[in-house]
Amino acid sequence: MKLAVMGAGAVGASVLDLASEYDHEVVAIADSSSAALDGDGLDPETVTDRKAETGTVGDHDPADALAADYDVLVEATPTTLGDAEPGYSHVVEAFERDRHVVLANKGPVAERYADVRAAEAESDGDLLFEATVAGAIPALSTVADLGPTHVTAVRGVLNGTANFVLSRMAAEGLDYEHVLAEAQDLGVAEADPSFDVEGTDAALKCVILANVLYDREYTLADASVEGIADLPGSVLELAAEDGRTVRLIGEVQDGEIQVGPRLVPENGTLAVTGTRNIVQLDTAFAGRLNISGRGAGGPETASAVLADVGRLAKR
Amino acid sequence: MKLAVMGAGAVGASVLDLASEYDHEVVAIADSSSAALDGDGLDPETVTDRKAETGTVGDHDPADALAADYDVLVEATPTTLGDAEPGYSHVVEAFERDRHVVLANKGPVAERYADVRAAEAESDGDLLFEATVAGAIPALSTVADLGPTHVTAVRGVLNGTANFVLSRMAAEGLDYEHVLAEAQDLGVAEADPSFDVEGTDAALKCVILANVLYDREYTLADASVEGIADLPGSVLELAAEDGRTVRLIGEVQDGEIQVGPRLVPENGTLAVTGTRNIVQLDTAFAGRLNISGRGAGGPETASAVLADVGRLAKR
Repeated sequence: MKLAVMGAGAVGASVLDLASEYDHEVVAIADSSSAALDGDGLDPETVTDRKAETGTVGDHDPADALAADYDVLVEATPTTLGDAEPGYSHVVEAFERDRHVVLANKGPVAERYADVRAAEAESDGDLLFEATVAGAIPALSTVADLGPTHVTAVRGVLNGTANFVLSRMAAEGLDYEHVLAEAQDLGVAEADPSFDVEGTDAALKCVILANVLYDREYTLADASVEGIADLPGSVLELAAEDGRTVRLIGEVQDGEIQVGPRLVPENGTLAVTGTRNIVQLDTAFAGRLNISGRGAGGPETASAVLADVGRLAKR
Repeated sequence: MKLAVMGAGAVGASVLDLASEYDHEVVAIADSSSAALDGDGLDPETVTDRKAETGTVGDHDPADALAADYDVLVEATPTTLGDAEPGYSHVVEAFERDRHVVLANKGPVAERYADVRAAEAESDGDLLFEATVAGAIPALSTVADLGPTHVTAVRGVLNGTANFVLSRMAAEGLDYEHVLAEAQDLGVAEADPSFDVEGTDAALKCVILANVLYDREYTLADASVEGIADLPGSVLELAAEDGRTVRLIGEVQDGEIQVGPRLVPENGTLAVTGTRNIVQLDTAFAGRLNISGRGAGGPETASAVLADVGRLAKR
C-alpha cells in the first residue's frame, strides 16, 4: 500500500523506516512546516538526514502530502484535546478522497469519535487505530476479534511513564519528585510530565476503548481521572507490608471510565514494572485475557500502525 | 456466514451454541456417526438435547454435512497424528468446493501443512486456524499482524493439564502421581494423560507456530520433546529454594522446536498457574509481547474459531 504519513516525530519516522519491511511504501511525509514526496517511495535515510540537518523533511508544503496519491493516510501528529486539530481535518480530508485512515494520534478518536465515524461512513475508506491504545499491544484488534459486545471489562496499565515512576518508588523507597527527576533524565518522562502523571494519557486510551466497546461517543470529560502526583511514598510502604503495590489503573466497565492509583498484588498480573503496559480483557465466553508489552516508542507504535495497514490491505 | 461444523464435542457444540452471538449460523453439524442439517440455521438446544438422549445429532449421515451449502467449514474433529484423518479429507473436500476452512483440529496443520496449503492454493477458499494454538489466546493472529518474519522467537506454556500438575506439585509439595490423580478427578486430565504430560500436545502447537513462522513444513517428528512424567518433586523443591519453579515450556526459535520442563522465575511472566496458558513473542521491532489466558475449553476455543470466521467475513 502507498502511505502518506502526517507527522515526522518518533512514530512517523519509524513508519517511514519500517514500511518496506511490511512491503508498503511511504510516498509522502509531512511535519508541521514541510513535506517530502516521491510517488515511487521515499528513501528513509534521505528524509531523516535532511530533517536532522535543516529541520525540514523536504521542499514541499505539508498540504502537498495530504494531496498526494496514497492508499492510506497515517495520522501521527501530536494528540491534541478539544477539536483534535490538525489531526481531525487530515482524517476528514482523507475520507473525502475515499482513502483509508490509520491513526497513531489519539485525538480524533478520543475527542471527536462520532464526527470521525460519520466521516468514515460517508467514505469508501476505512478507519483503524490500534496504535492509539498501548503501543505494540494488540488491544483493539483483540477486542474486534472477540466482538466488542462480548468484552465485559477492560483494565490495565496504559501509561509507561507513570508506571516507571510507581515501579521505582516502590522498588527503591524513593519519593515522587526524586523518581520523576530521574525519569526526566532518562527521557522516560517529558519536561512537562502532567499529561502522563495526571492520568490524562491513560484516560484518553480508556475513552477510545469505551468508544469501541459501547459504540457511542465518550470524550475525556466523561472519564473520572486521578493521577499519581500526590501519592505519598508511605502508601507504597503500607501496600508492600500487605504484599501489594500501587499501579495507575485505567478501567472501562459498565459504561464508566475510571483512571486512578489502585492497590494490586505485588506479584500479580497487573503489576508490570518499568515502562511496560498491560491490557486485561474480561470476556463473556473466553475468560480473561492479559496482553503485556511495550506501550510506547517509535518502532513499537509503528508496528501497530503497520499491522493496521496490513489489515486494510487484506480487505 | 453459514457454517458447517465437523465434530460435535466440546468445541463443535460451543461453536453451534455461540455462532448466533457473532451473527453467524450453523447450517450443518456432524459427529462421527450422524449429522443435523438446516439451511436456515440449526437450533443449538434441539441438537444438544438429541445428542444427550440418543447419542446422535440428527438423522443425516456425516457426509451430508460436508455436502451442505455453507461458507465456512469448521473442522473440530479430534486431533490425529500421521495422516491427520478424517480432518484432512474434510479440509480438502471443502477447498475443492471453494469454501473457507477454519480449524480447531491441530492435525492437518501440524502433520500435513504443505498438503493443506497446496489444497488452499488451488481453491478460492482461505484457511485460518487460530484455535489450534492456545485456545482463546490470539497467538496466530498476532503473529500474522506482526508479520511472521518479524517474530524472532515464540515460547510459552501451551498445555493447561501439564501446567496444572506442575503448579499443584510446586504449591503443595505433592508428587506427580498424586497430583495427576487429583487432576483426573477434576476432569483437568484425561484417563490417558500421555498426550498432555508427555509434551505431545504442546509440541503440536509449536509445530504449527513453526510452520507459520518459517513458511515451510515441520511435523511432530521435527520437534525435540520431553514431558513432565519423570520429573521428581525434589527438582521443584530445589527450584523453590532459588526463587524458581518448573514449567513445561514450548519454544520455537532459529528454526528449532523444543518442548521440555524448564526453570523459570517463580513470580515471572512465564510462571502462569493452574490451567492457564501464556504465549511470549519476541519481535524484531515491537519488543516482547506476552499474552496469557485460557488455552482450552469449549467456549474459549469456539471464541477463537468464531474470531477466524469474522476475519474471513471481512475479506
